[in-house]
Amino acid sequence: MTDLEEFKSLLAEISDLSGIAAIAGWDKETQMPKGGADTRATQLSTLAKVIHLKETAPRVGDLLASLEPALATADTTDGALVRLMRLEFTRRSKLPADFVAEFSKAQSVAGSVWEAARPRNDFKSFQPHLEKMFEYTLRAADLFGYDSHPYDALLWDYDPGLRTAHIKDIFTELRAFTVPLLKRIVAAGETVDYSILERSFPIDAQRAFALEVAQAFGYDYDRGRLDVTAHPFATNFSRDDVRITTRFDEHYFPMAFYGVLHEAGHAMYEQNTAPELRRTPLARGAWSTAHESQSRLWENLVGRSEAFWQHWMPRAQQHFAALADVDANTMYKLVNRVQPSLIRVEADELTYNLHIMLRFELELAVLEGSLKVSELPEAWGAKMQEYLGVTPPDDRDGVMQDIHWSSGYFAYFPTYSLGNILSVQLFEKAESQMGDLHAMFARGEFKPLLHWLTHAMLRHGKTYLPPELIERSTGSALSAAPYLRYLTKKFSGIYNLE
Amino acid sequence: MTDLEEFKSLLAEISDLSGIAAIAGWDKETQMPKGGADTRATQLSTLAKVIHLKETAPRVGDLLASLEPALATADTTDGALVRLMRLEFTRRSKLPADFVAEFSKAQSVAGSVWEAARPRNDFKSFQPHLEKMFEYTLRAADLFGYDSHPYDALLWDYDPGLRTAHIKDIFTELRAFTVPLLKRIVAAGETVDYSILERSFPIDAQRAFALEVAQAFGYDYDRGRLDVTAHPFATNFSRDDVRITTRFDEHYFPMAFYGVLHEAGHAMYEQNTAPELRRTPLARGAWSTAHESQSRLWENLVGRSEAFWQHWMPRAQQHFAALADVDANTMYKLVNRVQPSLIRVEADELTYNLHIMLRFELELAVLEGSLKVSELPEAWGAKMQEYLGVTPPDDRDGVMQDIHWSSGYFAYFPTYSLGNILSVQLFEKAESQMGDLHAMFARGEFKPLLHWLTHAMLRHGKTYLPPELIERSTGSALSAAPYLRYLTKKFSGIYNLE
Repeated sequence: MTDLEEFKSLLAEISDLSGIAAIAGWDKETQMPKGGADTRATQLSTLAKVIHLKETAPRVGDLLASLEPALATADTTDGALVRLMRLEFTRRSKLPADFVAEFSKAQSVAGSVWEAARPRNDFKSFQPHLEKMFEYTLRAADLFGYDSHPYDALLWDYDPGLRTAHIKDIFTELRAFTVPLLKRIVAAGETVDYSILERSFPIDAQRAFALEVAQAFGYDYDRGRLDVTAHPFATNFSRDDVRITTRFDEHYFPMAFYGVLHEAGHAMYEQNTAPELRRTPLARGAWSTAHESQSRLWENLVGRSEAFWQHWMPRAQQHFAALADVDANTMYKLVNRVQPSLIRVEADELTYNLHIMLRFELELAVLEGSLKVSELPEAWGAKMQEYLGVTPPDDRDGVMQDIHWSSGYFAYFPTYSLGNILSVQLFEKAESQMGDLHAMFARGEFKPLLHWLTHAMLRHGKTYLPPELIERSTGSALSAAPYLRYLTKKFSGIYNLE
Repeated sequence: MTDLEEFKSLLAEISDLSGIAAIAGWDKETQMPKGGADTRATQLSTLAKVIHLKETAPRVGDLLASLEPALATADTTDGALVRLMRLEFTRRSKLPADFVAEFSKAQSVAGSVWEAARPRNDFKSFQPHLEKMFEYTLRAADLFGYDSHPYDALLWDYDPGLRTAHIKDIFTELRAFTVPLLKRIVAAGETVDYSILERSFPIDAQRAFALEVAQAFGYDYDRGRLDVTAHPFATNFSRDDVRITTRFDEHYFPMAFYGVLHEAGHAMYEQNTAPELRRTPLARGAWSTAHESQSRLWENLVGRSEAFWQHWMPRAQQHFAALADVDANTMYKLVNRVQPSLIRVEADELTYNLHIMLRFELELAVLEGSLKVSELPEAWGAKMQEYLGVTPPDDRDGVMQDIHWSSGYFAYFPTYSLGNILSVQLFEKAESQMGDLHAMFARGEFKPLLHWLTHAMLRHGKTYLPPELIERSTGSALSAAPYLRYLTKKFSGIYNLE
């Protein structure tokens, strides 16, 4: 076996084992009887250890060193493999094993404390654990190393190459635009009868309709499936088995429907990485911003467009008697209701970003030392009032609402909003090459857009780092301007703003 | 770490990985979208290789050698671990890796050929592959080594310590008893209207009732679940996650119902190995005969007893309008219909063993060289006529009906009938210590029997080899006499034989 063959065979093995770990993880969330939880945790941790040992074996370093002279700058899949593995190998090697084990244990504990403390609205007992999460994270950032900001070091886990300063610039522009627009919308008042969405929507029909639409988009159900979980997600074991979950409320239509379109967006990314990347670490949808761009594109730019409902309204009426008296334009307005609220995951397209910016600013302030963890609840309330005009009645629906911080996942939130931004850049680029996409949607043509996205971005998997991937697929760097144009046009229309 | 700690930690790791492999295997049968098949096969084979390398690592041999002086004869769990691993390590080491890979590949091919050839009734194209299966199996037997019969060497995979000569003796006795009894039953004719079982039994109600009964037996559904597959099975990922599957026919009640009781019997074995055996290779229900004794005991000795229906008939009538005019005694006769037929898996309690004996005799004859593979179809037909009085119209429902031979699984079939035999020995032993079990069943008391079985046998897992386990739990060696008494009494009563 040559070194290259050995290298690729090792990566194939790691890829297979990671796929199997994902199966056991999916089963845990969707199928496992409750008595199986403890043993499953042990089994998953054993497999994770086996994978980690293979990824960090000294032999990997030797192989990389031997392959780099010929491949480090090669514009080939083998070159991309070597570059990605060097990046990950170097990064993994910077954290001492003891530190990783300690951090991981503290994460588990903090997660459990959060889970118990949140329903009791008990920030005090959570606070020391959250402090530990920030401390460990700062130590990790120091170990990774960075030029200007520890947050840069953290971003590499989710979006290698993304810089804090760039996010700040984008968010400043986005906030300056969103806050006044939101005030004008709130002042404009309600335009349709939103109670329509709370009529009876039988769950079987919701499931059937959502799957029909997702498949019309291009979600290949021969390589997928849909299950029910409390917290929806998409997961994949290979490009040929990519599963999504959702949750249903008979008396609230948008939750499951847009949840399915969102997760199907993630799933279509994974289903459309190039077949030749199979069994390599490149065969994964690229990092967080790119991934989120796909879920938000299909959910919002397609699924919440008026053209979408022009095509689907008759079919929706066949599924749901409750929509018999609703026309496409009304439906469009219904599913685009803007309303400041407390909970991020239930927020509309416009206010969602304000929830994200608030989290970004607060975690940055704590990491920079300008805000104490003990001051977070108050700072949260103040920013909610400033950005959204609402104040959480308690910490449960305030600073403690998300799981991320309790698991030490800082620097993750921004990628949600950056995904929104990228989705519009991609949409504009597609439209510049394909013509009027809304006209296509109105005719029921959705798959051409998926084909364009596959060619422009999805097929590459992790072949390029995010900045290069974005440049290649959109022709420019990440930039808020197209997104702001999109929001202005859409919501001015819906709310009849001058 | 001491050598013992290292040894146990390695076994725990192997146990965890095997559990994960079983999850991915279960998912493949019950949940996987069809497009995932190829990748899943690759992933499973990678994980199998990882496990195999850990099991056969030279370090395992070193550890065994270091631990054996102190533990090889110790009457402790550690002693049992060392003995079991020595047995498996020695056995695995006897087959060269190349031979294993070759055989495994040939098995895959033979399995695919069988799958395609069976519906076409095409024995000719299957024949060369079946010949290869016999050839490889004989070579494996030679590599393993044996005293008197190659079949002995094969039996070790399924029932270490079981001898061909012993099976021959038992089967001779069983056949001499069964064939004339069957003739008398056939002559006696039908006693009840069997079409009752083909009325409408709604599938939801079948599922609910079968699960209610299985849980009354002691199947812990907090550590289990029931799904639908074409070929029913039980599988476990640990003692805390033991799943069963079945298939439903709305117009044939016994299939799913007794299928669930059968698989629940297997499942209860796995759920009741001692908790302290967790994460060791001892935490598995012992080999095939013992395992089959549990499925057959709950399915037949309990579930097909008259006392069972005396208790459950009123509840069954609440579930099924179709049973409104059926009393417990009639139900007892309905589910104990004896009828010679072509297909083993659909056979009744009495004729089932004749199907097994036929297979045992034929595979033995080929392995001994007294019968050619090309002569199997004719020999099959002749024996079917001799034992059961029926002749298969084709090879599809004759010599090609089972998957076992196509995968090279010879020496497996006998353990099905030996399980029947052992189930009655266990039942008699339990009754000698607990009193009248049928009286308990009639009162709805089933769990005491599971507790007795757990104490006598299940908790030990694979701590003892089958001969010792059987001796410890029943007080004697495997013996057909109790089983023959049971069959005589049961079917004489049902068919009013003199």
